[in-house]
Amino acid sequence: MSESMSEKYTITKYSNGQFLHVEDVIVNEFPLTIFVNDSEFATMVCTPAHLEEMVVGFLASEGVIRFYSDILSMSIDEDRGYAYVTIKAETTTNQQYYSKRFIGSCCGKSRQFYFHNDAKTARTSTSTTAISAVQAITLMNEMQNSSRVFHETGGVHNAALCTPEEIIAVRTDIGRHNALDKLLGFSILNKVPVRDKIIVFSGRISSEVLLKAAKIGVGIVLSKSAPTDLAIKLANDLNITAVGFIRGNSFNVYSCPERIID
Amino acid sequence: MSESMSEKYTITKYSNGQFLHVEDVIVNEFPLTIFVNDSEFATMVCTPAHLEEMVVGFLASEGVIRFYSDILSMSIDEDRGYAYVTIKAETTTNQQYYSKRFIGSCCGKSRQFYFHNDAKTARTSTSTTAISAVQAITLMNEMQNSSRVFHETGGVHNAALCTPEEIIAVRTDIGRHNALDKLLGFSILNKVPVRDKIIVFSGRISSEVLLKAAKIGVGIVLSKSAPTDLAIKLANDLNITAVGFIRGNSFNVYSCPERIID
Repeated sequence: MSESMSEKYTITKYSNGQFLHVEDVIVNEFPLTIFVNDSEFATMVCTPAHLEEMVVGFLASEGVIRFYSDILSMSIDEDRGYAYVTIKAETTTNQQYYSKRFIGSCCGKSRQFYFHNDAKTARTSTSTTAISAVQAITLMNEMQNSSRVFHETGGVHNAALCTPEEIIAVRTDIGRHNALDKLLGFSILNKVPVRDKIIVFSGRISSEVLLKAAKIGVGIVLSKSAPTDLAIKLANDLNITAVGFIRGNSFNVYSCPERIID
Repeated sequence: MSESMSEKYTITKYSNGQFLHVEDVIVNEFPLTIFVNDSEFATMVCTPAHLEEMVVGFLASEGVIRFYSDILSMSIDEDRGYAYVTIKAETTTNQQYYSKRFIGSCCGKSRQFYFHNDAKTARTSTSTTAISAVQAITLMNEMQNSSRVFHETGGVHNAALCTPEEIIAVRTDIGRHNALDKLLGFSILNKVPVRDKIIVFSGRISSEVLLKAAKIGVGIVLSKSAPTDLAIKLANDLNITAVGFIRGNSFNVYSCPERIID
């Protein structure tokens, strides 16, 4: 698989009142169209690395598959940007439920999911993993320092699957959701238990990011950036600890603070 | 229309080795489902302000309408998060073309659009508007200073429609595309000519952002952040000047530099 994530361009740089021609590194953006059982399912615009993980994670996130063994075959045509997936159950590709708004209550609580597939695949966390403040800050610093593409291009999101002590995998993508789908795919492909793990993320905690974390199955999400009100409501509802603005030696805990220990 | 963009939450703040309960301002995230001629068209997760502009801009961006007069009626139910739109032509809501990948060549050039509606609505710029380096830097600073929500929550994108001399309208949203759709809706609702205007944007220039700018019809996009390679290719193809990393007194010009003058 090609792991090209950036390429060189000659650009015009304006600095100190002067225009100069310089070489710059630009992040790649790649459209991948996924076919499931011969029908077009979705087109994702992504960073062309770890595509197999992304496809597996995306299909799991959408509720199309649960286990890797649900996939009978998969091939990715990188030149043309197509992924062909054959899965067991034909009915699950019924597009009438995908991207359709769904509001319902489940588990006896009032809960609003706006997409049907979210209600199907997002899980309430039963994780008992806790981390210290210092561990949270250390994980964020380690993830951000590890990403070469980020430093070269400034144009990508990083997401990492971690234990309290260390990073297990870092995935990078121009799309915030894709980076998380890659981690979900990684955990499915490698049968990594997730309930005791932590997600570290460079971007904002929107409702979609929070739901992705719930689908991956972790109990803690650490972000460098801000959450939204809907993400905080979902985090409380799904028993997930949402931490934001990890910068320097401080951060904010928005939900379930009992998992952050002194 | 409600213009609530943020609300107060009590959070747990970790700073200098201590946990404190403090009040914080969190950005609102709001799901809006759009029905066109009684069938569900799309659900957007957005900042609940300027919703009418967003719906009009989104439908124009998707090629469903061209003019405001194509809309026979529109009502927005903010409590439940639904927008009901009635338009003239029934055929244009045919969902088989929306979100379907489309690769073709048009205008005698080799061009890749990955969605059918993009090929239909993105226009090659014929703008002759040029701006100076100082004007570009000034517009970015003015837009960022003007956004109260950004300063309070850190969780939103800003987009502004400008002349070289001044900002005409700033729109804010948690979704990068929504902020641009709101500007497109603003220009359609107010019949503002766009060919001679400039888009100033706080986020990255992805292919989707570049295509939105092409759909709005401007010739120059100024960003605080990085572009992708696909966005640069589209910018060259659509004759749009893409400027990124406007920070301090410097920036990078990635395409059509002739519109940035000394």
